[in-house]
Amino acid sequence: MIDLRPIFLVIGTLLATLAFGMCVPAAADAIAGHPNWQVFAVSAGVTMFVGVAMALTCRAGGFRFTARQAFLLTTLSWVALTAFAALPLAFSNLDLSYTDAFFEAMSGITTTGATVITNLDSTAPGILLWRAILQWLGGIGIIVMAIAVMPILRVGGMQLFRMESSDQSEKALPRAAQIAAAIGTIYLVLTGLWAAAYWFAGMTGFEAVAHAMTTIATGGFSTSDASLGHFDSALIDGIATAGMIVGALPFILYLKTAQGDLTALGRESQVQWFLIGAVGLVAVGVGWLWSVNGVEPLAALRYASFNLVSILTGTGYATAAFDTWGSFAMPTFLIIMLIGGCAGSTTCGIKIFRLQVLYSAARAQLHHLLHPSGVFIPYYNRRPISDEVIVSVLSFFFFFVVSLAGLAFGLGMLGLDLVTALSGAASALSNVGPGLGPVIGPAGTYATLPDEAKWLLSFGMLLGRLELLTVLILFTYSFWRN
Amino acid sequence: MIDLRPIFLVIGTLLATLAFGMCVPAAADAIAGHPNWQVFAVSAGVTMFVGVAMALTCRAGGFRFTARQAFLLTTLSWVALTAFAALPLAFSNLDLSYTDAFFEAMSGITTTGATVITNLDSTAPGILLWRAILQWLGGIGIIVMAIAVMPILRVGGMQLFRMESSDQSEKALPRAAQIAAAIGTIYLVLTGLWAAAYWFAGMTGFEAVAHAMTTIATGGFSTSDASLGHFDSALIDGIATAGMIVGALPFILYLKTAQGDLTALGRESQVQWFLIGAVGLVAVGVGWLWSVNGVEPLAALRYASFNLVSILTGTGYATAAFDTWGSFAMPTFLIIMLIGGCAGSTTCGIKIFRLQVLYSAARAQLHHLLHPSGVFIPYYNRRPISDEVIVSVLSFFFFFVVSLAGLAFGLGMLGLDLVTALSGAASALSNVGPGLGPVIGPAGTYATLPDEAKWLLSFGMLLGRLELLTVLILFTYSFWRN
Repeated sequence: MIDLRPIFLVIGTLLATLAFGMCVPAAADAIAGHPNWQVFAVSAGVTMFVGVAMALTCRAGGFRFTARQAFLLTTLSWVALTAFAALPLAFSNLDLSYTDAFFEAMSGITTTGATVITNLDSTAPGILLWRAILQWLGGIGIIVMAIAVMPILRVGGMQLFRMESSDQSEKALPRAAQIAAAIGTIYLVLTGLWAAAYWFAGMTGFEAVAHAMTTIATGGFSTSDASLGHFDSALIDGIATAGMIVGALPFILYLKTAQGDLTALGRESQVQWFLIGAVGLVAVGVGWLWSVNGVEPLAALRYASFNLVSILTGTGYATAAFDTWGSFAMPTFLIIMLIGGCAGSTTCGIKIFRLQVLYSAARAQLHHLLHPSGVFIPYYNRRPISDEVIVSVLSFFFFFVVSLAGLAFGLGMLGLDLVTALSGAASALSNVGPGLGPVIGPAGTYATLPDEAKWLLSFGMLLGRLELLTVLILFTYSFWRN
Repeated sequence: MIDLRPIFLVIGTLLATLAFGMCVPAAADAIAGHPNWQVFAVSAGVTMFVGVAMALTCRAGGFRFTARQAFLLTTLSWVALTAFAALPLAFSNLDLSYTDAFFEAMSGITTTGATVITNLDSTAPGILLWRAILQWLGGIGIIVMAIAVMPILRVGGMQLFRMESSDQSEKALPRAAQIAAAIGTIYLVLTGLWAAAYWFAGMTGFEAVAHAMTTIATGGFSTSDASLGHFDSALIDGIATAGMIVGALPFILYLKTAQGDLTALGRESQVQWFLIGAVGLVAVGVGWLWSVNGVEPLAALRYASFNLVSILTGTGYATAAFDTWGSFAMPTFLIIMLIGGCAGSTTCGIKIFRLQVLYSAARAQLHHLLHPSGVFIPYYNRRPISDEVIVSVLSFFFFFVVSLAGLAFGLGMLGLDLVTALSGAASALSNVGPGLGPVIGPAGTYATLPDEAKWLLSFGMLLGRLELLTVLILFTYSFWRN
């Protein structure tokens, strides 16, 4: 049997923290004179009670986790946080079913940004703020996990990012908790900077803070049904584009930069590939909008860069129904949905470093066919990639494609058309937000989908957010065998 | 520089053989009194002339090939055969453009079965026979290649099927040529059996021969626009279903069975998995048609088994617009399109043995996460799989998905809707034939697609037929570097 006590202790502590988080929207609603503050207060009370009770009853010696416990903790904690984060949404005046509330909370906490709420513009400020807070907390949560937990669990090649400092105890910030605190500070500062920028560009203080939170988290929740298109400002679009790129880079490198290693970002090959790829993609998009759709160059640059970066990074803001941009749009957006950003960022998807490893492995494979007796070692970031990492990443790709096909298959069986099913599955698995087509495209919402589809998509978001294997391993027989 | 002479010598010989093949439809048309026999006669003359000229000018000592020459020969020979096989179609009274003729010939020779001809029922017998012959030759061609060439080139894990006899020179049929001849005889006998069965079930002699050829080759060309639905006979459907399954099993095992090893087929794990999978799939299909669509059980069995086996094996016959069978149909058919049959059969797609290796590798990967220091060896057919094969198969899967996405992307850019683009790409890459949806679905044809799409799909068929890497390697820089 797996000892659940240390797991419940951590989850209880996280729930207590979440309860504190609920006080912020409660305060916001109270200040705005909106009666919904009571819902947040009650939800905070319930969450705090359950959290403290769990933590107290499960006090047990030490924090050492077996691999089994770590996998279970990771998945359970995200599910538990989502289940309680959904409470204020379910009890609010929005008339959401618990299914809808859970979907919305999962979409928030995984930084996806898919929504079932149809009239955001008239929604109480507390709800809007709560959605932003969920994405913001989810964003920092995943960064910390990508740095501290995933490399140790060796999920999908994340062992590439085992911290060098763990070998060198004299380093300036040797301990994971200190690193997490430092990165949390950077995250907070970046959010503050973007809030200021948005405010300067014309948003209200409330809108600026809410959007800054969901920009740096590459989450994509907005305070308006029209997403950032509501503001129709080139400056705001530009600020958001820059912010989404900042959110898509490895946060540990911001820490190194802050510590004086000014070329840390430039030296990392996943950063180089991501930026070159993004610029190339935008160039092609601008060329298409200009030459084929006849959009004037500056407007083409604005719409192409914003919407392509939004989908590439899995943020999911929209300023246009980009899936109607012509034959280029649908296949391009479907594919870039799956890419995502850098490891250790707030983005999801396959991620740049895995594409690099896959490319290197594919090259080595072709070389090997030509020269059977030759030895070809794939490289990543100027270091040879071990066989273990190659098989990890190739397996991850397999799990990713099978999960995508499985989710799309399930959604298709529930009666969704192929475009909705496939783009919905891709969007959930990569934590993007909007899908493609009339139903769940950038101009639609997930509100009209059947409940089963919402649960399936919630599962997809969780799967994608936790790098698939962390969740899938719980469904194997040998995980539960003694 | 690569010495092209031995390559041209082989291609010249193959073209001369193809020219002999053209004499059959010429004779058929002449007997039927159809003037189209002249087209075949002229095409045969041209092909013979080019073939003999190539062979004669490139006579060079020996048949020893480097890996480079073998890859080049494999791809070039399929392209050259297709280019000349298209001649009688292009010059016939069908008014096909050369693009259409090339597409149809590639679809034939790769045993795909996608067609651009819209009124087969009134087409000259020579043309119908030529299409069947192309699939039949393509079928035996790919079996021989899967046994003799692919394992040596070690493409996509095919090294699993390196012949045991190559190590034991005292074996009964040690030499590849002898094995090929024996398998050719089996192929011929099976075709004869199925022709007799079809004829017995009510087809004309001509129809029986044409369909037997395209059944055993899992090709799918028919003599009627309505495919086998034209005959509307449960007996014919059953005969075809059995024939497609026979075509999807490893032909080398028929040889072993004929040599007295009666359990050879039953012992092979890819055969077990394929048959169990097919039965399970049909059971689900019957259940759905019966319970959801209200089809009477026996009719459900007939339509589900025929159409599911037809798509699973990549044959592509149809007796119903199966993509309109409800929400179950579209996602199911799209996924089973990609599966295919056994290695060393006439089927294409990912193939059962690769799915087995992928499953084993995925299991090992999950075990490895739980027990980092444990050693987990994936097995195939009760033997451990080497790391080389695992990486080969995982890489193959990567190349397959990227090729599928690339083809679908290209087709989407050409303006095809997502269902047509995606199912067309899957159908071409897996050599199935029909796609899904109103345009290229079982009730449609590829005639209306733009020329660029036909070339792209032709390339996709070639790519799939030659296990991807055989073709892709020609596009690498290092292949052509000295």
